[in-house]
Amino acid sequence: MITLDKAAQLLLENDDIYILTHQFPDGDTLGSGFALCRALQKLQKKARVIISGEMPDKFLYLKNGVEEQEFSCKYVVSVDVADINLLGDKKEEYNGRINLAIDHHELHRAFAENEYIEGDSAANAEIIYALIEKMGVTPDKHIADCIFTGICTDTGCFRYPNASPRSFRIAAQMMENGANSAEISRIMFDTKSKARINIERRVLDSMEYFADGKASIIYITRAMIAETGATEGDIDGLSAIPRQVEGVIAGVTMREKKDGDYKISLRTLPGCNAANICALFGGGGHKAAAGCTISGPLEQAKEKIMCAVTKALS
Amino acid sequence: MITLDKAAQLLLENDDIYILTHQFPDGDTLGSGFALCRALQKLQKKARVIISGEMPDKFLYLKNGVEEQEFSCKYVVSVDVADINLLGDKKEEYNGRINLAIDHHELHRAFAENEYIEGDSAANAEIIYALIEKMGVTPDKHIADCIFTGICTDTGCFRYPNASPRSFRIAAQMMENGANSAEISRIMFDTKSKARINIERRVLDSMEYFADGKASIIYITRAMIAETGATEGDIDGLSAIPRQVEGVIAGVTMREKKDGDYKISLRTLPGCNAANICALFGGGGHKAAAGCTISGPLEQAKEKIMCAVTKALS
Repeated sequence: MITLDKAAQLLLENDDIYILTHQFPDGDTLGSGFALCRALQKLQKKARVIISGEMPDKFLYLKNGVEEQEFSCKYVVSVDVADINLLGDKKEEYNGRINLAIDHHELHRAFAENEYIEGDSAANAEIIYALIEKMGVTPDKHIADCIFTGICTDTGCFRYPNASPRSFRIAAQMMENGANSAEISRIMFDTKSKARINIERRVLDSMEYFADGKASIIYITRAMIAETGATEGDIDGLSAIPRQVEGVIAGVTMREKKDGDYKISLRTLPGCNAANICALFGGGGHKAAAGCTISGPLEQAKEKIMCAVTKALS
Repeated sequence: MITLDKAAQLLLENDDIYILTHQFPDGDTLGSGFALCRALQKLQKKARVIISGEMPDKFLYLKNGVEEQEFSCKYVVSVDVADINLLGDKKEEYNGRINLAIDHHELHRAFAENEYIEGDSAANAEIIYALIEKMGVTPDKHIADCIFTGICTDTGCFRYPNASPRSFRIAAQMMENGANSAEISRIMFDTKSKARINIERRVLDSMEYFADGKASIIYITRAMIAETGATEGDIDGLSAIPRQVEGVIAGVTMREKKDGDYKISLRTLPGCNAANICALFGGGGHKAAAGCTISGPLEQAKEKIMCAVTKALS
């Protein structure tokens, strides 16, 4: 583990830099990557972002400030990558070649020559902001858009418990540096695809309450996904729905797997330990969010998890 | 219009203070009221909040820091009240008796002896924060909860265009002063009543796209409300749904009135002027949000508004 000063120094000393994001790229890994890339380009360095997997269209604006440069790579940085396996389709090419990892995951597993990790940072973009300032670059509008995107997406629009006073203050600063915060928030939190609306409707139709209304359950079958054309991005977030119901302490989401078994995602409020319930089925996780797999068919898997949750709540 | 210093001075000079909120009280008027009340009580003054209409249960925690005091009123302050008519059931009693109005509505219509208005403040609670500091009170945990609630509710969880760098910075400060920001955000933005879930399901079932997918329409009938038991609070916010769909520029919500006519709410993105469309039916509003009434029955009203929106978009 190096210091932030050292990380800034390494970047200043090197050139021809590749910046790697994690697979299923989200606003924080992309925002971190493009912010850093633009900052390096502003310092007259050659830099490019190498994206693992596919970049969702809604993030395309993050690229605006970055010039497409072709060069042969001399230094490799990863941003928001907690584990070498999360490089996905880029793992084989870059494993063992990463010079600097910048990450905010508490459970980061070291893989780089130099590592700078802040496990208590809500978003990796917060670290990138501090790093860019150390490098002597003042965030312009493009960098501000990227940093704001990273922070707002990783904090669920500033409402998850990880959002810290620092998150809010950097967001304020990025607005002052030109971030189009309202438009970014609209794209990230106020826009749903037609397929998302359709699968949400189907999922709400599947909702049932049990355990005296203290628990609720929804399911997502492969047929529902096929019929609505929902992508992984559309399905993402559906598992928050059951726990959102007033009075519900335990919210269960069942998702049919290829083999007909069901992936269970359990979200709970204090007073109900999700990890303990999922452990009964060989799964695990945290107090407030855990997962497991239960064999199908649907009705049988549903009965099993409902029974376990009811017991835990009584 | 007085200065903030003068407003603070008036409050310091007076005692036995009633604080009035607006009707259909929301997080900002209540947060402002209870924050100010606690600050005055901390200064050894007698103060109480007089709520116009009924206070929704989810806001009860705002009362935590305030002592219930009985006294005869010598000074009256209103918070977040843009117009005397918004005092609702309290108007008759206090009209002409209000000594100080503190408000953040650009279209505030003066009604008090002294007025302090900041039309560019995202939330009235931001002004209350500044006022409390001027009065020499450091916000404690209770005040911080109130101020944070006012800001996060009036900015739609920091995502509406009104959210300013100041909004974010005061939020950060309130977290440091003890505001339970994550729990407040969960209650305000991550909780839905069972009736809300049910009416949302029904409303999604009613959704249709038109104008080549650039517009969508939903309807809420009186039968749907009766069958789901939805309250005004549950219905609030449904009209945001049609415009949230990706690619949709104009989102229409139709709500059946007692007389069988339909109240139309139109939300649009830049490029489609909602006020112009609603003006065709004798309504009005702003570029991005407007309303009108069209006579029923449903199918007839629906055809009329869809036709007008289609024309505007072509």
